Amino acid sequence: MRQLIVDLGERSYPIYIGEGLLEQAAQLFGKHAIPVKSPIMIVTDESIAPLYLGKLQSVLEGAGYTVHSFSVPSGETSKSLEMYERVMTAAIQAGLDRHSSIIALGGGVTGDLAGFVAATYMRGIRFIQCPTTILAHDSSVGGKVAVNHKLAKNMIGAFHQPEMVIYDTLTLKTLPMREVRSGLSEVIKHGLIWDRGFVDWCREHAEQLLHLDSEALAYALYEGCKVKSYVVSQDERESGLRAILNLGHTIGHALEAVAGYNELVHGEAIAIGMVGSALLSQRFGYESEIHRITKQLFERFGLPVQIPAHMETDAILEAMMHDKKFKEGQMVFVIPVHIGKVEIRSDVKVEWVREVIEQLKGKERA
Amino acid sequence: MRQLIVDLGERSYPIYIGEGLLEQAAQLFGKHAIPVKSPIMIVTDESIAPLYLGKLQSVLEGAGYTVHSFSVPSGETSKSLEMYERVMTAAIQAGLDRHSSIIALGGGVTGDLAGFVAATYMRGIRFIQCPTTILAHDSSVGGKVAVNHKLAKNMIGAFHQPEMVIYDTLTLKTLPMREVRSGLSEVIKHGLIWDRGFVDWCREHAEQLLHLDSEALAYALYEGCKVKSYVVSQDERESGLRAILNLGHTIGHALEAVAGYNELVHGEAIAIGMVGSALLSQRFGYESEIHRITKQLFERFGLPVQIPAHMETDAILEAMMHDKKFKEGQMVFVIPVHIGKVEIRSDVKVEWVREVIEQLKGKERA
Ligand SMILES: NC(=O)c1ccc[n+]([C@@H]2O[C@H](COP(=O)([O-])OP(=O)(O)OC[C@H]3O[C@@H](n4cnc5c(N)ncnc54)[C@H](O)[C@@H]3O)[C@@H](O)[C@H]2O)c1
Ligand SMILES: NC(=O)c1ccc[n+]([C@@H]2O[C@H](COP(=O)([O-])OP(=O)(O)OC[C@H]3O[C@@H](n4cnc5c(N)ncnc54)[C@H](O)[C@@H]3O)[C@@H](O)[C@H]2O)c1
Ligand SMILES: [Zn+2]
Ligand SMILES: [Zn+2]
Repeated sequence: MRQLIVDLGERSYPIYIGEGLLEQAAQLFGKHAIPVKSPIMIVTDESIAPLYLGKLQSVLEGAGYTVHSFSVPSGETSKSLEMYERVMTAAIQAGLDRHSSIIALGGGVTGDLAGFVAATYMRGIRFIQCPTTILAHDSSVGGKVAVNHKLAKNMIGAFHQPEMVIYDTLTLKTLPMREVRSGLSEVIKHGLIWDRGFVDWCREHAEQLLHLDSEALAYALYEGCKVKSYVVSQDERESGLRAILNLGHTIGHALEAVAGYNELVHGEAIAIGMVGSALLSQRFGYESEIHRITKQLFERFGLPVQIPAHMETDAILEAMMHDKKFKEGQMVFVIPVHIGKVEIRSDVKVEWVREVIEQLKGKERA
Repeated sequence: MRQLIVDLGERSYPIYIGEGLLEQAAQLFGKHAIPVKSPIMIVTDESIAPLYLGKLQSVLEGAGYTVHSFSVPSGETSKSLEMYERVMTAAIQAGLDRHSSIIALGGGVTGDLAGFVAATYMRGIRFIQCPTTILAHDSSVGGKVAVNHKLAKNMIGAFHQPEMVIYDTLTLKTLPMREVRSGLSEVIKHGLIWDRGFVDWCREHAEQLLHLDSEALAYALYEGCKVKSYVVSQDERESGLRAILNLGHTIGHALEAVAGYNELVHGEAIAIGMVGSALLSQRFGYESEIHRITKQLFERFGLPVQIPAHMETDAILEAMMHDKKFKEGQMVFVIPVHIGKVEIRSDVKVEWVREVIEQLKGKERA
């Protein structure tokens, strides 16, 4: 078992990563003095429940916990105020008190929703995360929890650090392949912004990662969490440094907004976005090898590196301007300086972005 | 203008109390460096809007702020998730960003609702309170914000300290008399738990207070806030000392639960509750003058000191047992030791409580 401490002063917490950790949940609960007297509630989704809920529930019941559970439909639509209210109702009916814990068993959707319930139930109770996706290595660090408003994603939320994160790599075996690649895209991002050595390691271990080799996965998740954790502990409330975590996300979010249903998942969109950032970095005179290495890396992981040709450049730019990061003809972008290091530039010209989008659509040679 | 600092480390904030302070809102906003660039939103209720919204809005617009507003129906029913979502929608449509402020102009209902929106809009933005009731002196200290769930009051919320509190005593002139008395009940509570001198002062200035004399009111609000502030700064997250603020509330909440529509407002219910706690204190051998003084004090303010005879003792006890503070035949109560000092007792026998309820119904002489 690997263990990483997310260092946030009195809100510090450990991330445990390893194969079969759900089996050890009871010991970990004991270690964290989670009281047996107060009922606890597992929040999960309907795809994950049949796979892992029974296991986790029986392990905890075996240790004397009164365990309730609530499953939400799979997918982003469950991150809604409606579902938030339903989980709240379930928590009240289950009799959760101020010493109770809410446990998220699932991916980022479950984590964000259950975490926001935990942040606001009786003004905040304990929150424990059991991530079951690779992408959730990202949401397991930083304490950002949220639901979506009809008008805007992640608009309603809080900062609420978990008590601990129990990351059982065995659960990843059932992840659909597309979710595997998508999650790895965010892992690689953490290398690209911070740690060239880890980027090299990812390239060399692409095969193992894609085959869900437990050792390789545990290492990659550990390193991904470590980078994010370092950044977050420097900037818990997102006032500065934390922005570097958005590498690839300005373009990525715009692509997600413009894409048709199920056309691009998050990790795919940001992979294209990171290739775009690498192209932008050339405008600042940085090495063209940044682009070459970034592109080859994502190709190796079977991730897209081009914008689907049918997407309108204007629509993509339009979506970006709705983003908060745009002001007066200049855009704020995370730009790679070399592999493993980025900078925030607020002097990216809109026409450069337009040209890069065209390049990403394959209309011009990069 | 009086000024009190609620001392909570880096979350400390001032409460400004004085006549005509809404006129000075722009200066106070300037003093607190509330940015003019980002739009702000005033949340108020439909009774208060016609009285004070125009004034506050024009003062702030005069200083260059872009001011949006949203009015909710008056009354406790607006502290709902439905209304929360509507205020959120208004905030998004108004284009509030991470540097925006939400301003509550109103009583505890507006403050709790708007404060919870501020706590969770984009994971938390600035919150400024402009209380317009006497009771809101209580909610202006401590940062507790919440909405009600259909199944339980104040169940969904957060701790979110305001940036500042602007308490204009002029606005209190339009308060219905019943709300005046109700609010003063909570002011007196702060004396009873902490400061005998202030209790004496209240008794001597009952006339001025009931006639809304600005000087007397400002002093009483200042002293009430000061006691609460001291207690809260010792125990921000409500783990111990803060419980003394519940003097009279165990019985009071039960009475509110059992009372018919509009039969008892909060301050009335807790006045009866405080008389009940004084009766209970006799069981622990404390002076009977505690009861005499408490009862006479509330009578002087025109507050009820008896439980309406038609309320069933069993129903009241039942409601109390639903309260979190009950366990195994013993109840946790805040008990006066003498005027100006209380203690938390977890060894109050249920039969004593039954007898006290009977006494409060006038069935037995106290
Ligand atoms: N809070 C943060 O800091 C943060 C960071 C990144 C992303 N997020 C959020 O995370 C969400 C995306 O996360 P996600 O990709 O994990 O989404 P997700 O939770 O929807 O999971 C993706 C899909 O995989 C299924 N699934 C999950 N685990 C499985 C398993 N072990 N076996 C089989 N199927 C499984 C789910 O049912 C779902 O259909 C977004 O809402 C995003 O906003 C939050
Ligand atoms: N957050 C906390 O720490 C805390 C503490 C105590 C109470 N509360 C909450 O506060 C609420 C009760 O507060 P409240 O009594 O101020 O209720 P309120 O906000 O509903 O105000 C009472 C009534 O007076 C009217 N009103 C308010 N100001 C007026 C004015 N200046 N002129 C004329 N009419 C006016 C309102 O429209 C309303 O009808 C409850 O929901 C309670 O839970 C919160
Ligand atoms: Zn991402
Ligand atoms: Zn009260």
